[in-house]
Amino acid sequence: MSKPHLPSEFELIERYFAPLARGFPGACGLRDDAAVISPAAGNELVAKTDIIVCGVDFQPDAPAERVARKALRVNLSDLAAKGATARAYLLDLIVPETIDEAWIAAFARGLAHDQNEYGVHLIGGDTSSTSGPITVAVSALGEVPTGRIIRRGGARPGDDVYVTGTIGDAALGLAVVRGELSGLDADAAAFLVERHRLPQPRVALGPRLLGIATASIDISDGLVADLRHVCEVSALSADIEARRVPLSAAARRALAADPQRLAAALTGGDDYEILFTAPAAAHAQIAALARSSGVPITAIGRMVPASAAGHPSVIVRGERGQPLAFASEGWTHFGTDP
Amino acid sequence: MSKPHLPSEFELIERYFAPLARGFPGACGLRDDAAVISPAAGNELVAKTDIIVCGVDFQPDAPAERVARKALRVNLSDLAAKGATARAYLLDLIVPETIDEAWIAAFARGLAHDQNEYGVHLIGGDTSSTSGPITVAVSALGEVPTGRIIRRGGARPGDDVYVTGTIGDAALGLAVVRGELSGLDADAAAFLVERHRLPQPRVALGPRLLGIATASIDISDGLVADLRHVCEVSALSADIEARRVPLSAAARRALAADPQRLAAALTGGDDYEILFTAPAAAHAQIAALARSSGVPITAIGRMVPASAAGHPSVIVRGERGQPLAFASEGWTHFGTDP
Repeated sequence: MSKPHLPSEFELIERYFAPLARGFPGACGLRDDAAVISPAAGNELVAKTDIIVCGVDFQPDAPAERVARKALRVNLSDLAAKGATARAYLLDLIVPETIDEAWIAAFARGLAHDQNEYGVHLIGGDTSSTSGPITVAVSALGEVPTGRIIRRGGARPGDDVYVTGTIGDAALGLAVVRGELSGLDADAAAFLVERHRLPQPRVALGPRLLGIATASIDISDGLVADLRHVCEVSALSADIEARRVPLSAAARRALAADPQRLAAALTGGDDYEILFTAPAAAHAQIAALARSSGVPITAIGRMVPASAAGHPSVIVRGERGQPLAFASEGWTHFGTDP
Repeated sequence: MSKPHLPSEFELIERYFAPLARGFPGACGLRDDAAVISPAAGNELVAKTDIIVCGVDFQPDAPAERVARKALRVNLSDLAAKGATARAYLLDLIVPETIDEAWIAAFARGLAHDQNEYGVHLIGGDTSSTSGPITVAVSALGEVPTGRIIRRGGARPGDDVYVTGTIGDAALGLAVVRGELSGLDADAAAFLVERHRLPQPRVALGPRLLGIATASIDISDGLVADLRHVCEVSALSADIEARRVPLSAAARRALAADPQRLAAALTGGDDYEILFTAPAAAHAQIAALARSSGVPITAIGRMVPASAAGHPSVIVRGERGQPLAFASEGWTHFGTDP
């Protein structure tokens, strides 16, 4: 492949990235070495970074707009799960020399789209060339009322375990992409693939969990793995029922055709839903929140004391109450290509 | 090369990275999805990100400790030039599958060393595997008194242009590494190579420029290129004299042997010194600051109105006052391998 002519780093910033900083004075139009950002009075900043790599987190044929949006959204999902409201982000863009200006332009359009959707601004960044795959790291900054961030470690015995939306769509969508899941109608397949390709972070809901959720995490490694993270930091176990895990109509059809895929749905990554715990007393408030936000929120089990040996664990029960065993608990970033 | 067995991401965090978050409560021991950070009363946060890539910013044989320290220091240098005091950073570490646990351990040791040296903490991060080269992105967070960050754009006509330390060592060190600069004694060569390999960010000095400097930038792209950045945002030109640019004894020896290398010294990257502007009235204060800090600070020229056509430019004058011309103004990140 011939090496395209890419404008200088300074020209790229001026043409494509500086416009993304408009409306955030502290970014100084990206015409400086650093940005300033302050939380509103009574708030503190919340910081998070996440990387996506071509061949690991997205396919080589993924359009640039979608790569940009995924890189941003996986971070916004984390902030939302902490009860934080996203404000700004730093962008590290590392691209091979086969990338041309049209790709950069499309990438910036993807960011612009999501900036409008989520009310965030680019406030700084860096670019570099690489002999390897496209790699995008975003560091997102949000804010939350001081001292009120929703941590993984706040769950208490007896708390209910809730999830937003539906679980497993992304893992099943990945199976569709890989050609491993056949027999689905086109609409269901397209729905699952779209859920795999582009997260829909629960940014409107997350901050509304402040004062309700005792612990929270976004489901990126997989339901079981992320619930285990909550268990470990909360020093508790979780006891959930597979039949209560909310599934989309498309996921239900996929599982009817191939029941063995249940494990993939419960342990696969990239759901980008919120898993949280809350006391029984919050039940009515959570039901009201689901109604007013339009986001389904489903109780799937309970937090229980860790085993006598003190090992936090996640018990997933099948139809007859029997614990299910999974070969893998979830996604790891040192893993195989999708 | 055989693929080493790397522990899981969670084990790596627990063993090597979580200890780097100790002492910063908002990092929650890296056992959560995000960190909280607040500026002290009267301050605001300053955010900056910078990437280093193997084969572009460091050699493939660079030890892991040094890679870690360089990744952190290039960011600390930017914060210092803005008058900010570094507090914390997020780390994105992208490594090929040839990396083993010993490399990660050494990388973390490098970070621990510099955390002690500079008083910063790791507060979050992400890791991923790649089929490409080692890539490290750091997003640094510091703080500065509200509204007082030193920008690129504050220079005024008649301001003096100052630089800290010595200029060109890193560029000449790169020439030594490449085998292009011979005839130097071993000590001088070693000094220049070390200046090329590991930045010494001016973190103690930077915040002391608050209230003195009208504009500031760290010299990473090269003296001429970075001075041009100040000119562009300040809408001024700069008129500097090559003979006033401070050179180390080793650099003077290198230039005595090969005067053509002056261009490399003035336009090469990676000095990580601070370039700033200040009014003539600040001269005595700056001399006192140089004495008390032990960091040489040298005036090299003046800011002048931009040309009649309004184009900001950097004029570098030679021995007889004649403007010098350079083939390249500085380093670009979309460039060739070192």
